[in-house]
Amino acid sequence: MTGLLDPWTLFDVIDVVGVFIGAFTATLVARRLRYDITGMWALALVAGLGGGLIRDLCLQVGPPLALTEPAYLPTVAIATIAGATYGGKVDHTWKSIVFLDSLALITFAVAGSLRTLQYDYGIWATALLGVITAVGGGVLRDVLSGETPMIFRRAELYALAALGASVAMIMLDLLDQPRGSIALAGYTVGLFLRFGSLRWGWMSWAPRAPEERSRG
Amino acid sequence: MTGLLDPWTLFDVIDVVGVFIGAFTATLVARRLRYDITGMWALALVAGLGGGLIRDLCLQVGPPLALTEPAYLPTVAIATIAGATYGGKVDHTWKSIVFLDSLALITFAVAGSLRTLQYDYGIWATALLGVITAVGGGVLRDVLSGETPMIFRRAELYALAALGASVAMIMLDLLDQPRGSIALAGYTVGLFLRFGSLRWGWMSWAPRAPEERSRG
Amino acid sequence: MTGLLDPWTLFDVIDVVGVFIGAFTATLVARRLRYDITGMWALALVAGLGGGLIRDLCLQVGPPLALTEPAYLPTVAIATIAGATYGGKVDHTWKSIVFLDSLALITFAVAGSLRTLQYDYGIWATALLGVITAVGGGVLRDVLSGETPMIFRRAELYALAALGASVAMIMLDLLDQPRGSIALAGYTVGLFLRFGSLRWGWMSWAPRAPEERSRG
Repeated sequence: MTGLLDPWTLFDVIDVVGVFIGAFTATLVARRLRYDITGMWALALVAGLGGGLIRDLCLQVGPPLALTEPAYLPTVAIATIAGATYGGKVDHTWKSIVFLDSLALITFAVAGSLRTLQYDYGIWATALLGVITAVGGGVLRDVLSGETPMIFRRAELYALAALGASVAMIMLDLLDQPRGSIALAGYTVGLFLRFGSLRWGWMSWAPRAPEERSRG
Repeated sequence: MTGLLDPWTLFDVIDVVGVFIGAFTATLVARRLRYDITGMWALALVAGLGGGLIRDLCLQVGPPLALTEPAYLPTVAIATIAGATYGGKVDHTWKSIVFLDSLALITFAVAGSLRTLQYDYGIWATALLGVITAVGGGVLRDVLSGETPMIFRRAELYALAALGASVAMIMLDLLDQPRGSIALAGYTVGLFLRFGSLRWGWMSWAPRAPEERSRG
Repeated sequence: MTGLLDPWTLFDVIDVVGVFIGAFTATLVARRLRYDITGMWALALVAGLGGGLIRDLCLQVGPPLALTEPAYLPTVAIATIAGATYGGKVDHTWKSIVFLDSLALITFAVAGSLRTLQYDYGIWATALLGVITAVGGGVLRDVLSGETPMIFRRAELYALAALGASVAMIMLDLLDQPRGSIALAGYTVGLFLRFGSLRWGWMSWAPRAPEERSRG
């Protein structure tokens, strides 16, 4: 049986959705920076496959999926074409980039945790690889294009939302829940934390800088 | 028989030439940024070995060549000494950096594709690893030294030229051509695309930014 | 026997000390840049575990320690809490960051060389991985936070100090000295080179830029 709830099929579907959203988000960033079509494609490739590539290099279970998964090339190609042709209609504000980046963030957190749960690496490694998969593509995208990575921007939950998704999934896995419920729980917790923080301004605490303190 | 056209010998020769050109180019960048001799050596090491290191980590066929190939240390050392002593005579313009970087780009594309063709990873992986080997060292060099990676600069074929070299080699490999012809074809196509685009201004297409469109 | 001078125990102790200092240093950098607590934790994680992660990916001897070592999570957590609560008392100048970064640099050089010496990768690989472990976390920290990596700042020995530590250790290992002496020699040479260059201004040589020469 290889239905949608079969562990690997479920991972594949969520993973490809993440790759598409991550790659498409990168094309919007590339438009803002006036990259040409190759630069746009390169940034889409990095953002779509980068997080999973770092995760798979860490997992050390053979060649990374980025090299062996046949669905990635057409997925990134379609995302790049979509971004190049229709990107002008959605890219009016930075807001849409943050929105799509958030969707990719949580989708990659769920995909990365699902994949790592297939191996027995323990709680710490699973949580860490879930977060690395989630933030990796976006961090590479921002470092390569000279932006401050979103993970370091203040006033929103970012890596914490990915960590929340991963921890929720690890807990349900310890309770032997089916993969479908695990993925659903990860999505719910992650999207709630990320979009809740964007909507209601939940801030992660920041220590006051020394100058502020001395002035205060 | 281990003549020059033996697969591994051919790869070794082309690879070391690429490492030398890539490392020497990095010393010119380091001069512009007024790095001292250690910074220059570090940047040469990263630019010379970085692309191949990422490729080998992805290939997962044992320790990367960067650690085990005895020719790399003297090659990078000679390139650094050459760049430190004679670099002042060639580094009058950004143009010479772009010229040498282009030679390294295509040399690495040929070397990376040759090496990946030795393993059976399929077309997609071979093309991707060819491009990663080609652009990896230069991207790391530019990110570490705070420049915009050349891959994202407009108005020239860069990653596309490396991809062209890789695709030409994959096609000749499918036709069971000898390694020497495969390497020659990769060089010819890659250098033609890269230097043709520099000379005649072949541009890769860039979508107009939304603001331009609304103004137009 | 698993006393303190047992090879692995010695490595573990030095390694965790390096992770703590590297992570704590990153929290000071994060304070300067006004990151919130998650950004601070992320930067601490990258700086504490990044160098060892790259080293282990290159070693190809199974999953990297960053995923399997249970002491890392609490170490980075304590360093982050210490940086968030007491960081304001030490972070008055850039000087304290450079001081702590130097301690982490040499500690990681010793740990990385000790770990690589356990495997038979030869002199070149051991020296290279010692330096990569030493500078990796700091370089990733600086690239992600948009600073110029310390390795490229002029007027001090940085990578050369790490290399000195590594070479001293390789030489004593060739002479079959016990691990304790090897580690001590690495620390002594490395700290002497790094702090000597900070104190007495030993500069690594820098070639004059072409413009300076033409003006001179």
